[in-house]
Amino acid sequence: MKYFTLKINTLAWGLSFAFLSAMLSCGNKETINNAVTMETMSKKDVTLSVIHSRKSVRNFITGKTVPRETLDTIVRAGMAAASAVNLQPWQFIVIDDRTVMDSLAAGLPYAKMLAHASAAIVVCGDSTVKAGELAFWEFDCSLASGNILLAVEAMGLGAVWTAVHPDTVRISTVRTMLHLPDNIIPLNVIPIGYPAGNDKPKDKYKPDKIHWNSY
Amino acid sequence: MKYFTLKINTLAWGLSFAFLSAMLSCGNKETINNAVTMETMSKKDVTLSVIHSRKSVRNFITGKTVPRETLDTIVRAGMAAASAVNLQPWQFIVIDDRTVMDSLAAGLPYAKMLAHASAAIVVCGDSTVKAGELAFWEFDCSLASGNILLAVEAMGLGAVWTAVHPDTVRISTVRTMLHLPDNIIPLNVIPIGYPAGNDKPKDKYKPDKIHWNSY
Repeated sequence: MKYFTLKINTLAWGLSFAFLSAMLSCGNKETINNAVTMETMSKKDVTLSVIHSRKSVRNFITGKTVPRETLDTIVRAGMAAASAVNLQPWQFIVIDDRTVMDSLAAGLPYAKMLAHASAAIVVCGDSTVKAGELAFWEFDCSLASGNILLAVEAMGLGAVWTAVHPDTVRISTVRTMLHLPDNIIPLNVIPIGYPAGNDKPKDKYKPDKIHWNSY
Repeated sequence: MKYFTLKINTLAWGLSFAFLSAMLSCGNKETINNAVTMETMSKKDVTLSVIHSRKSVRNFITGKTVPRETLDTIVRAGMAAASAVNLQPWQFIVIDDRTVMDSLAAGLPYAKMLAHASAAIVVCGDSTVKAGELAFWEFDCSLASGNILLAVEAMGLGAVWTAVHPDTVRISTVRTMLHLPDNIIPLNVIPIGYPAGNDKPKDKYKPDKIHWNSY
């Protein structure tokens, strides 16, 4: 009995030692780096990894729905983009109706993957919104589209920018199908869905495109 | 002595219990969600937080250098942007020479903050690069600029898109100072530096800009 008590108490001490080691090892990282440094490092690493893993996804798993809440989160990311003179000249048509998806797929030769995507966002610019003489909607809407592409990637979904503007035929097709007024120009159609897995990111880093202090 | 042994053994058992509880609580999250789900959630949360905390930083802490390695990482993020027909019609002038920074600050009325920024990136497009009849450099270069703005934010730095194109006077000023050939159009000048802290992100979410399935 005494031997048993000794053994079981040794076990208890062993577990206590393990507990103290685990606590020390758990707190270790936060002791070495302060919280702000860790957060900044992690933000940088995660953001760069999302930027570099983003790819044009053209192959989707069919039949899976993307919830409206998710689509709203994605568009919300788009609206957070920089905008010249804060004019926010963008409008977003979000499509999750199968009939509209299929009509657009049929009408747009470069957006056939709409037939397999779960949803689509059409980023449009209001051409009447100007800062003085100059219109910046093409840049603002491109930035909003860029945020959309990155949010989609970060959420484990896939998307691809299919061009509409400045192709006048495609603009006319999209305008008719989505009932766009004349001042609302569709910049692109961005099909969104669950990636089938066969689209990969490209390494486009070319040091000769960087010029220090002069071209 | 026996009392002391009893007490110290009770302590050991208490610690053991704490150890087992800690282990169970530590492993809990990974048991509920698998590793992939956790990674995706974290990627999503971090990316959305960077997208929504990005702001136009116009006020910088003066005199602090941004290392060339950091600037290279930022431009590399720019080059990872989507590009129509993968044409990558972009060129990047990265400025960290105080004389060039000050000349640009003097020549560009809307980019006076260059005098206090640590560096700048001028994103340029090659207007001769086309997909058939259509030029997409404005959109591709906007997307590259968007990646740059987000990478900067994620790295704890600050930046702001100051417009050059389509203002012909500003284009001419930048062309002369940076020795750009005629086909290379400066889209913007993006001053980069350490934020002074007084620039805040704007909430631009407007649900009435979202249209479901039709305008």
